[in-house]
Amino acid sequence: MKWSISQDYFNGEEISKNGNKYLIGNGYLGIRGTLQEYDKSSYPAINLSGIYDKYKDGWREPLNAPNGLYTYIEVNGKSFRLPNVAPREHSQQLDIRYGIFTRTTVWEVDQGNITIHAEQFASLPVKHLIGFKFCVRADFDGDISIITGIDGDVWDIHGPHYKEITLNRNEEQITAFAVTNEEDRVSVSEEIFKDFVSDENIIRENKKIFRKFNVKAKKDNTYTFYKYISIFTSNDDSNPNKASMELLNQKRTSDYEVLLEEHKREWEKLWEKSEVLIEGDDEAMLALNYSIYHLHCIAPRHLSSLSIPARGLSGQTYKGAVFWDTEMFMLDLFLYTEPEVVKTLLKYRVDTLGGALKKARHYGYEGAFYPWESQEGGYDACTDYNVTDVFTGRPVRTYFKDKQVHISSAIVYGIMKYVHYTKDYGFLLEGGAKVIIECARFYQNLLVKKVTGTKYEIHDVIGPDEYHERINNNVYTNRMAKFTFESALFAIEKLKDLDTKYFDELDGEYNLNIFANQLKDAIKNIYIKEPDRNGIIEQFDGYFDLEEVSIEELKQRILDEREYWGGANGIASHTRIIKQADVVTMLNLFKDEYSTVIKEKNFDYYEPRTEHGSSLSACMYAMLACKCGKPEKAYPFFLKTANADLMGGGKEWAGLVYIGGTHPAAAGGAYKTVVEGFGGLTIEEDELVIKPHLPKRWKSLIFNVLHNGKWSRIKIQGDQVTIQII
Amino acid sequence: MKWSISQDYFNGEEISKNGNKYLIGNGYLGIRGTLQEYDKSSYPAINLSGIYDKYKDGWREPLNAPNGLYTYIEVNGKSFRLPNVAPREHSQQLDIRYGIFTRTTVWEVDQGNITIHAEQFASLPVKHLIGFKFCVRADFDGDISIITGIDGDVWDIHGPHYKEITLNRNEEQITAFAVTNEEDRVSVSEEIFKDFVSDENIIRENKKIFRKFNVKAKKDNTYTFYKYISIFTSNDDSNPNKASMELLNQKRTSDYEVLLEEHKREWEKLWEKSEVLIEGDDEAMLALNYSIYHLHCIAPRHLSSLSIPARGLSGQTYKGAVFWDTEMFMLDLFLYTEPEVVKTLLKYRVDTLGGALKKARHYGYEGAFYPWESQEGGYDACTDYNVTDVFTGRPVRTYFKDKQVHISSAIVYGIMKYVHYTKDYGFLLEGGAKVIIECARFYQNLLVKKVTGTKYEIHDVIGPDEYHERINNNVYTNRMAKFTFESALFAIEKLKDLDTKYFDELDGEYNLNIFANQLKDAIKNIYIKEPDRNGIIEQFDGYFDLEEVSIEELKQRILDEREYWGGANGIASHTRIIKQADVVTMLNLFKDEYSTVIKEKNFDYYEPRTEHGSSLSACMYAMLACKCGKPEKAYPFFLKTANADLMGGGKEWAGLVYIGGTHPAAAGGAYKTVVEGFGGLTIEEDELVIKPHLPKRWKSLIFNVLHNGKWSRIKIQGDQVTIQII
Repeated sequence: MKWSISQDYFNGEEISKNGNKYLIGNGYLGIRGTLQEYDKSSYPAINLSGIYDKYKDGWREPLNAPNGLYTYIEVNGKSFRLPNVAPREHSQQLDIRYGIFTRTTVWEVDQGNITIHAEQFASLPVKHLIGFKFCVRADFDGDISIITGIDGDVWDIHGPHYKEITLNRNEEQITAFAVTNEEDRVSVSEEIFKDFVSDENIIRENKKIFRKFNVKAKKDNTYTFYKYISIFTSNDDSNPNKASMELLNQKRTSDYEVLLEEHKREWEKLWEKSEVLIEGDDEAMLALNYSIYHLHCIAPRHLSSLSIPARGLSGQTYKGAVFWDTEMFMLDLFLYTEPEVVKTLLKYRVDTLGGALKKARHYGYEGAFYPWESQEGGYDACTDYNVTDVFTGRPVRTYFKDKQVHISSAIVYGIMKYVHYTKDYGFLLEGGAKVIIECARFYQNLLVKKVTGTKYEIHDVIGPDEYHERINNNVYTNRMAKFTFESALFAIEKLKDLDTKYFDELDGEYNLNIFANQLKDAIKNIYIKEPDRNGIIEQFDGYFDLEEVSIEELKQRILDEREYWGGANGIASHTRIIKQADVVTMLNLFKDEYSTVIKEKNFDYYEPRTEHGSSLSACMYAMLACKCGKPEKAYPFFLKTANADLMGGGKEWAGLVYIGGTHPAAAGGAYKTVVEGFGGLTIEEDELVIKPHLPKRWKSLIFNVLHNGKWSRIKIQGDQVTIQII
Repeated sequence: MKWSISQDYFNGEEISKNGNKYLIGNGYLGIRGTLQEYDKSSYPAINLSGIYDKYKDGWREPLNAPNGLYTYIEVNGKSFRLPNVAPREHSQQLDIRYGIFTRTTVWEVDQGNITIHAEQFASLPVKHLIGFKFCVRADFDGDISIITGIDGDVWDIHGPHYKEITLNRNEEQITAFAVTNEEDRVSVSEEIFKDFVSDENIIRENKKIFRKFNVKAKKDNTYTFYKYISIFTSNDDSNPNKASMELLNQKRTSDYEVLLEEHKREWEKLWEKSEVLIEGDDEAMLALNYSIYHLHCIAPRHLSSLSIPARGLSGQTYKGAVFWDTEMFMLDLFLYTEPEVVKTLLKYRVDTLGGALKKARHYGYEGAFYPWESQEGGYDACTDYNVTDVFTGRPVRTYFKDKQVHISSAIVYGIMKYVHYTKDYGFLLEGGAKVIIECARFYQNLLVKKVTGTKYEIHDVIGPDEYHERINNNVYTNRMAKFTFESALFAIEKLKDLDTKYFDELDGEYNLNIFANQLKDAIKNIYIKEPDRNGIIEQFDGYFDLEEVSIEELKQRILDEREYWGGANGIASHTRIIKQADVVTMLNLFKDEYSTVIKEKNFDYYEPRTEHGSSLSACMYAMLACKCGKPEKAYPFFLKTANADLMGGGKEWAGLVYIGGTHPAAAGGAYKTVVEGFGGLTIEEDELVIKPHLPKRWKSLIFNVLHNGKWSRIKIQGDQVTIQII
């Protein structure tokens, strides 16, 4: 398999999309794979993790750092930069083995050709460091200027986020020191090492500071410089300015190639564990490992409590917020190969419990109602009016934040999967149990009983299928509430074994014996819709009464390409067309409670009614097909998932809002589908069990998992399975 | 006081509005006060009670009969008719004492002036008969043709409703026999008596049949003809064609003036009972008696089971359907002066219980969920998509039908008010008790309890204020549900006294002892919001969290005059602006449960937040102000209510739907305000009690009420009250 993706042409319209496709990152920051000469009109971004800002009434969103990669050339005083001046040749490449982005561009000038080549990486061992190499060569003698520095005039969706930006030159470094509207600080410093002699001027203009090197270039000589860029925020250090400069002082003596080697060694370690080999299907293998690459780029390894936004570190889309995507779709790669990352992700939820309690309180409930769009501290960044009506330009009242109560259960699901798999039950003592108990209290608060009825119901929610708002008894939500009750019961019992003192402490707070009885009662009485006489589970009360219409027919009703399909009056809202897997997601999670016949019937019923308008959808269908023993049926859904970012094609707009970016949940879903779906990995009686269903074209599938402290290399060839301890 | 309204000008644009203002009717039919020469483009209508038709996907709506009043003239072969040929003079008049509409129009022709005069009445004693008189006079010698006949090409909002129309001439009569899409039949026959000699031609064209009389007119001679029009439908007679012709055969020997006298005598009888005298305020007195006139025009006196549509008999608006308006706003005039009409109105609800049971079943409930828009048999004519989005032209999912559950309680309220006032407890045995019990079962079914809570709540409703959909614990709805429980308890107890056999029968059906205990439990536990620390009762859960905005500010957000303010995304939906009295309506109905201070505080809080976008709103404010002892505060709201049809100004459009027509609920509300509000009529210990609060300008108020079998004439002068048995 080749470990890179590349293109050898330039297309100005692909600028924004390619930013996602060619992304590099190290969990602390993500760098969109746009070009060095781009200004904000072409959407470059060095997106920072875990730091947010709100400007006026705009959405609160993460910061893009001042762009220290900013670089372009002038020949004879005329600037050569894409997309403004068409190139003679252009190629770019992303090395997904090592997270290195390179580009080469040739322009024709009056005297001949001039070629630039650039290489950049976000250091995996040194998270605050970006390495950058830039070469220029002309096939003529001439005056070439190289302009390189920091562009503080960054792209923002709802900015500007920097109310103040100070540009300095100190000894060998230039620095941009920015202050946000919320008084956070971001410092970007950079130092240059060049292999040629030139004069150097410092130029400041419109939030930019750069050096200009004027070179009397000789024909066919290559002029190269290296730049180390260091980024710190006030989240990282109380004096980010000093910290960013000091890092450069430390690294000054390190050769660029050495830094690059260290970086590559770290990547190699990741691949040693996580690489998946698929013999007989290079396309699938590339797409899958490309997906794994993206997950590695955004995994938080520099802190013990941080999570991954729904669009990774690819920008400000969806407010850089953490959704249920993390626990429900992204966790598994890390669970099987790097469980400490899972712990970091879940610790973020433990540490943001306060926000979840506060949110529940706001809506009149006890317990933990986790944010639909979680930022630091558990602040829900989702707004009450999260969509704009394209016909009137008016904000539309949406209920994502208020009614997607299933988010809390996803967190419980993540914790339970982690502790059961890793047997790190200590995590329950580190806050995990408290989160589970508070989530259970929340669902307990949501239960209503008809005075004339017997069952406990949950009304007025949004399920995974967001096109249908304010519905009753969504089977996914109710089953997940029940799962939360079951998990809380488990946690309470487990605590007794683990730490009686802590149990007593929580007992004092929650009166655990009474609570456990209430949980048992809730588990017994909660209403979970059963398959009807055709074997179909109704997604929510009244779903079967909705209009039956095909997706094609529905599309003919579209009046504006950007219109939102859901909400109170979207074109899908009162039809059976759903946005994404909903009942099918439930069937995946509780596969043992339903027969294969029921699973298949529901797949066949819901799939044609699913728009797959979310990147979370296809993998659930793929996995369910695998669970029905139908890998060929699963295959196209798997490929769609694995290719989500490689092929692009995701929606770029919802209403008037830009929603482009990478799709790490799809990447995680692709991994899940291969390992748990085609691979059929499960744990039975604490042992790895492999029940594979490989697609016919796959001659073999090989992957590694860490379980019970041992690494196993699993090789599947047809029905033959080898598990080798390594 | 003058007993007529009139105008002495012609304005083509007022055509449609004047149809409502100058309406005549007799409970069987209503005739819009447009002009005889009008065709459907100018909205004439002879609107029939209790018969409906649905054409294709259009709304099901009442029938307009083929127009037997259709008449115009030609002079020298040129037609003279409004609005096409501008008149020299035009005047028209409605005699509200006797329900007679007249018009006089003068046109200038080449040789001089030609004058027509017409008079029409819908016979009160002979409901199927319309009397019509037409005169023409020229101040020159000339050839005049009079064209008169039946125009079967009627105005329909969602028609055409006649799939077939047969036009005949039989001996002296011409007849239009129409068959509807639902296979109902309507027959209109007419016979002419003229005081002049002329030839006569029968002409048929496009669903019209008419006679053409050619007259060699002499200068200043008046040529008069009389026409008797007879209308029967298949609801009235199995052979409506024969019935309509036979009625004319019977009436042929009756002189027009004799028929008119009989008609006037009947009206005089109504006024003897119902006239209200207000000394010192002619404007109020006219507006009030004009309102009473309208209620008389539409009161069903020809059947023992029929109700009044929300727009009376003024056309097809709101599908000619019966709303809560009848029980909650129109009942009182009849209760105090003609209680047999109330019984007829309530009998309609008893007879449509089947539809209400079916509707409840459809939504998964037991009991009776009365239709929001009730047609015959209790069919709910309200559609799921009852509003059109003016921006996209798409139908909007509305919840009027699904969620306005308070309709059932209004019917219980009507029954209880009737039986308590008249002591006709026998009505409970005639189905009244069954209706009450089934309504109570319905509300019992709606009750939900939070599993962690104690109170019984009602979720996901629309209250009287329709701008806020799908809300929880609307205080009006919950209190009315409680009232229904209380009423059912009362009915159950009363049945034991009235008829033990019938009690046993119902007991067998409903297990009344157990049910009574359940009702007591529900009464005890239902959640009724209490005044907050400022004394304000929150209209529903979360109302106080909505945006605070003034009506003026809200209006500035309007993008299209016709846009709907409510629904999921209307401009009012997420603000505190309400369509109509809601909490204030509740305070009126349960006045003894709240102090004057609370009533006043809520008036003052909600009034500036009320758009009064419904004609049901102002009278509730007027009455509450009276109950606070503030007649001057009530007065402008009373006048607005009483003038609803006289001054016009009601909305003519909601979204893209025509909603013009008369406002009998406002008329009823005006009467209620005067008698119960300013007059302060209540019943205490079975005696009439008068606690008046007259506006200062009113020197005296005089009205009659029938109570305990005796007529009382009540005269209020300042604080002095005289009750005289008459």
